[in-house]
Amino acid sequence: MTTRDEFKQAPPFAFSVPGPIEVADEVLFANAHPSMSHVSPDFVPVFGDCIRMTREVLLTKSGQPFLISGSGTLGWDQVAANLVESGENALVLNSGYFGDSFKECLETYGANVAQLKAPIGRAVALSDLEKELRSGKKYKIVTVTHVDTSTGVLSNAKEIASLVRKVSPETLVVVDAVCSVASEEIHFDNWDLDIVLTASQKGLGTPPGLSILVASERAMNVFKNRKSPPSSYYASWKKWLPIMKAYEAGSPAYFATPPVNLIYAYRASLNSIVLGDLSLEKRLKLHGVASRRVKDAAKKLGLRQLPESEGEAANGMTALYYPEGLAASDILPRLAKRNIVVAGGLHTEIKDKYFRIGHMGITAVNEERGDIETIVRALEEAVKEARAAKST
Amino acid sequence: MTTRDEFKQAPPFAFSVPGPIEVADEVLFANAHPSMSHVSPDFVPVFGDCIRMTREVLLTKSGQPFLISGSGTLGWDQVAANLVESGENALVLNSGYFGDSFKECLETYGANVAQLKAPIGRAVALSDLEKELRSGKKYKIVTVTHVDTSTGVLSNAKEIASLVRKVSPETLVVVDAVCSVASEEIHFDNWDLDIVLTASQKGLGTPPGLSILVASERAMNVFKNRKSPPSSYYASWKKWLPIMKAYEAGSPAYFATPPVNLIYAYRASLNSIVLGDLSLEKRLKLHGVASRRVKDAAKKLGLRQLPESEGEAANGMTALYYPEGLAASDILPRLAKRNIVVAGGLHTEIKDKYFRIGHMGITAVNEERGDIETIVRALEEAVKEARAAKST
Repeated sequence: MTTRDEFKQAPPFAFSVPGPIEVADEVLFANAHPSMSHVSPDFVPVFGDCIRMTREVLLTKSGQPFLISGSGTLGWDQVAANLVESGENALVLNSGYFGDSFKECLETYGANVAQLKAPIGRAVALSDLEKELRSGKKYKIVTVTHVDTSTGVLSNAKEIASLVRKVSPETLVVVDAVCSVASEEIHFDNWDLDIVLTASQKGLGTPPGLSILVASERAMNVFKNRKSPPSSYYASWKKWLPIMKAYEAGSPAYFATPPVNLIYAYRASLNSIVLGDLSLEKRLKLHGVASRRVKDAAKKLGLRQLPESEGEAANGMTALYYPEGLAASDILPRLAKRNIVVAGGLHTEIKDKYFRIGHMGITAVNEERGDIETIVRALEEAVKEARAAKST
Repeated sequence: MTTRDEFKQAPPFAFSVPGPIEVADEVLFANAHPSMSHVSPDFVPVFGDCIRMTREVLLTKSGQPFLISGSGTLGWDQVAANLVESGENALVLNSGYFGDSFKECLETYGANVAQLKAPIGRAVALSDLEKELRSGKKYKIVTVTHVDTSTGVLSNAKEIASLVRKVSPETLVVVDAVCSVASEEIHFDNWDLDIVLTASQKGLGTPPGLSILVASERAMNVFKNRKSPPSSYYASWKKWLPIMKAYEAGSPAYFATPPVNLIYAYRASLNSIVLGDLSLEKRLKLHGVASRRVKDAAKKLGLRQLPESEGEAANGMTALYYPEGLAASDILPRLAKRNIVVAGGLHTEIKDKYFRIGHMGITAVNEERGDIETIVRALEEAVKEARAAKST
């Protein structure tokens, strides 16, 4: 039988996309755990640990985690089907592709959705949000994409929550943090957030397949006081809340089979994030350092970032316009030749004009691996080579 | 780096529950595949293979597979949100716990649900179904739980489909096959089924976390002709159909991040089911042989099966009442002492009166391992020991 110490994954060759990110050997090994019944005494405390440590990553004492088999998208369905009732108002702060999708999800379940849409490369201005909140329309929820993976724009979740709390205290603040948990600062309790939803495959360093959501007591009360039943079956908190409470208390319960292996994997990653030598604070700082290094190098090469303001640029990824006169076909193959696989554009209006480099998790945190320098060097060489090829 | 040949899982100690079942080394190793972007050229054909081989397991040429991150339960949401519109009639053939849940799911999305409920241990009689179908009420779908894991009752999906097709040709036949795909016969095309929905962690021998569904052309036409949009976002075929078509055609597409590692694992298992030395036909036969052996041994010990008729007993699991005078606490610990972990009761009305033994996949098929004999011996010893303890 293979032991944890013996297990080593093949060298990765795609460690620079903004998710799924590279996963540590111990996490992959846990994902290869022998089958285990979801109600077995071995598995129950593992699920319980994941619930408890999810709270620690988000710095909350009383938030209620939901860990459900599914992709990050399922978090939107959870919000739409459990918190908003048909005809109620939702306000989406849109800083890219994922705002449009969240809006569509909310509408599917009957919400009446308004959007504040930032220009490409910007977050929604707080003053616009304040104006809308003061317009007299009562919003059940305000949603913000913390880091929109399509643009790399970072929104100020803290200031947004504080403004909503001041101007419209009953409105729930929903943060889509798929591309920000464990790579950007999030203080669930201190910032007084209501929902943080995310997925396993980005900053949390686990393979994809787990929808992770934390709800505040305020949100849970709104849920409990709904007039109509939740409008989804699979995403219904009425079904999942007793399951989460049971596993946390140390007993199994059944609604739908949890992704047992992935829960083992998630715990392995949480162990290193929450209990490892590196504090969460230091982990986030290292993401900042890595980000700064990539962004500075890009600037020196004359590459313009999508985010127009430094304070609105994510720390876990970098979105860059191709240099003048060069396109995807000039840059991406030259990066790939150097073992750097990045992601193309995603925002529909400018899809072919930019690319995205991920630097979350291991890549940013394990400095001794030198991944960031490898990325920077490859980027420099690729751009220089492409320019030289054009000028001949 | 660890190679496939080197990787060996720890010896399993829970190989007798009716799912999650034991997973082969090569499948677990694939689940520990290094991270890969869901749009990478390495991953795209793997997803495509899974779509194609899912068709082969179900013996269909034209069925449309949907492979979505989630548990088997998500298949119900797919049916309810894509095929039935608000106020339309659905008929649930109930042979246990999972019929009640499917009914609740359909109602969540607005269906008007009637049930034909078999007595515990029986499948719904075809004559009752015929009477209901001839009553004049028009049903959009009829659902049947092929094997209800709570009772081990096997319903005759072939005869049900044939009857529906004769009496109410436009009604869609939906088979919940979570506990039957790759352990019971299913001829999607020949039986003229409309939906088969299942999950990865039972007969398909893969860790849990993948909802697998196949829809007939008739079902896809019903979907395409809906008047209202699908009533779920995450489970919407409007979103997923283009993704499935793209991956099958060899291009990536994005709606929500697929569970990349699990797709590698699913392909590894499909490779052995579809392309392995053992034909699918022979695989099913071996499930029958294993089942016969367990059921005969139980009968000899004086243990009564839940299914009252031999023709209505599943081949992938065996549900047994505890012998007279004995309870869970007399039998289960004595099985566990012998490394046999079985599942307790699940059907709410008789939860404490019976237990369930799983014998799907490796356990049934790899005869040289002798798992079935180990189970039988442990059962014999446990029952004898328990009886002896009571009589002293």
